[in-house]
Amino acid sequence: MSELPDAVRVREVGPRDGFQNEAEVIPTHEKVRLIDQLGRTGLKRIEVTSFVRRDVIPQLGDAAEVLRQIDVPDDVALSVLVPNERGLDHALVQRERFHELTVFLSASETHNRHNVNRSIAQSLEELERVLDRAGAEGLRREAVISTAFGCPYEGEVPAARVTEIAQVLVAAGADEIAFGDTTGMANPRMVEERFAIWRAALRGVELTAHFHNTRGLGLANVLASLHAGVDSFEASFGELGGCPVPAGATGNIATEELVSMLEEMGIATGVDLPALIVATGELSDVLDRPLGSHVLRAGPVDWGPPPDRPA
Amino acid sequence: MSELPDAVRVREVGPRDGFQNEAEVIPTHEKVRLIDQLGRTGLKRIEVTSFVRRDVIPQLGDAAEVLRQIDVPDDVALSVLVPNERGLDHALVQRERFHELTVFLSASETHNRHNVNRSIAQSLEELERVLDRAGAEGLRREAVISTAFGCPYEGEVPAARVTEIAQVLVAAGADEIAFGDTTGMANPRMVEERFAIWRAALRGVELTAHFHNTRGLGLANVLASLHAGVDSFEASFGELGGCPVPAGATGNIATEELVSMLEEMGIATGVDLPALIVATGELSDVLDRPLGSHVLRAGPVDWGPPPDRPA
Repeated sequence: MSELPDAVRVREVGPRDGFQNEAEVIPTHEKVRLIDQLGRTGLKRIEVTSFVRRDVIPQLGDAAEVLRQIDVPDDVALSVLVPNERGLDHALVQRERFHELTVFLSASETHNRHNVNRSIAQSLEELERVLDRAGAEGLRREAVISTAFGCPYEGEVPAARVTEIAQVLVAAGADEIAFGDTTGMANPRMVEERFAIWRAALRGVELTAHFHNTRGLGLANVLASLHAGVDSFEASFGELGGCPVPAGATGNIATEELVSMLEEMGIATGVDLPALIVATGELSDVLDRPLGSHVLRAGPVDWGPPPDRPA
Repeated sequence: MSELPDAVRVREVGPRDGFQNEAEVIPTHEKVRLIDQLGRTGLKRIEVTSFVRRDVIPQLGDAAEVLRQIDVPDDVALSVLVPNERGLDHALVQRERFHELTVFLSASETHNRHNVNRSIAQSLEELERVLDRAGAEGLRREAVISTAFGCPYEGEVPAARVTEIAQVLVAAGADEIAFGDTTGMANPRMVEERFAIWRAALRGVELTAHFHNTRGLGLANVLASLHAGVDSFEASFGELGGCPVPAGATGNIATEELVSMLEEMGIATGVDLPALIVATGELSDVLDRPLGSHVLRAGPVDWGPPPDRPA
């Protein structure tokens, strides 16, 4: 395994992708407290909220308040997600409060219509304008391509189609492309094959893997993407998140499980795992339910005291 | 990933390793019904029970009854686990009812003492007699080495120590060595390194990986062992099992998640995943609690109808 990276970048997306899928609205002060806590675990990238219409996603109706109130160390890069120019307008009211802008669309026409009621061509047209304006504001720009490995409505999503979409986004100014396995259809073989294709087609662009643990193999997909040269990941504390399709599906890969695996493998994440587990425990308290994360229950691997070494 | 196997062998150990860790005794007729159902999912290897002292593990006090009553297709190989010669005596009363005998010990002195109150040397001496007699009975012989990747009491367990123990067991007649990550301390890098060592030292012996999903990376460890040439796995339906240390730890890797990942990767298991998920659902009903398995909730990946092909 000598070809694996020494360090990776981890973006915590729980406060957006995770909270968004919670049925009960979480009080703003709890969101702020949890984000502040995440910001002190060593995580260097956090997606904190999304500027969407309150009637579409009531859970994120407090986006402006969350962004205004959070207080994290200066070296933590905060990102916000926007669906369109109108969301960008709202976000830019607090331009000085965040560093990165995230946009998204699906690689499947059907999923994109279900999600944002537009064709892929219409989405790309809108996102080109958003990316252009975000660039003028000096924001780092990430574009997430959902259903990049498969679609619950259409089944297969050709890798070449995903590549085409990514190339349009890069031409429009995206600095980073995240490939989302939105409903947990990816497997390690597919992951390794697809990232090989995407890396070859998108040289110089940060490529990020965004896996869901819908069928329990999220970390196996992480391992496969490490083998394919990926060194940037998104995850959600407590395994929060997910997608309403298929019914009963669980969430994103758990950040604390990702960090546990990588650190055990000697791949640096910069994250203090015990501190992250404490934050996830508080999340469980706030939501008042058990979470899917295994590491939350078992704790970090305990190798005991280090062997005595001569001074 | 061209070096991956086309097919693997899967042994279902839930009826022994899984049931054993359930606090409430499961009625014998329910155990029998579930094993009979597992035997009709395409699983070709099932560990059905263990002949241990009833006062030590009351849950398996019905071992003889279970073995007597189960009814699975002729091509399913049944194994029973015994801790010592006395257990073997009890098992051999129904010699014609099973095909494989499994013995076990730990690679950590402390864990072995906690588990069977013996030193490793004492265990090996006893197991040599058990393996010898099992061979004379024409039974296939598997030896499981627990804590082969790490020990909750001792921390590191040297790979070379595990190798030595395995070599003694092979010399005593073991046809198969299973390496147990009993408390979920393994990581993919370690798995790949250790199986490379063990494969080189134990040529001609079936090497089996037995992972726990204690920290969520069981399937990542499966992927790593596939890369290291392993093609034999043990798993437990519903993610049952586990170990009392660390507290709150979850169980073995879930058979249905293992099968889902492998089949999606084009690696044949012989198992009918929907049928296995039905069996796991019935297990959840019998235990009257939700299980950790993600595939149980999400179902198999749905790629939709196959594309039209000319006749």
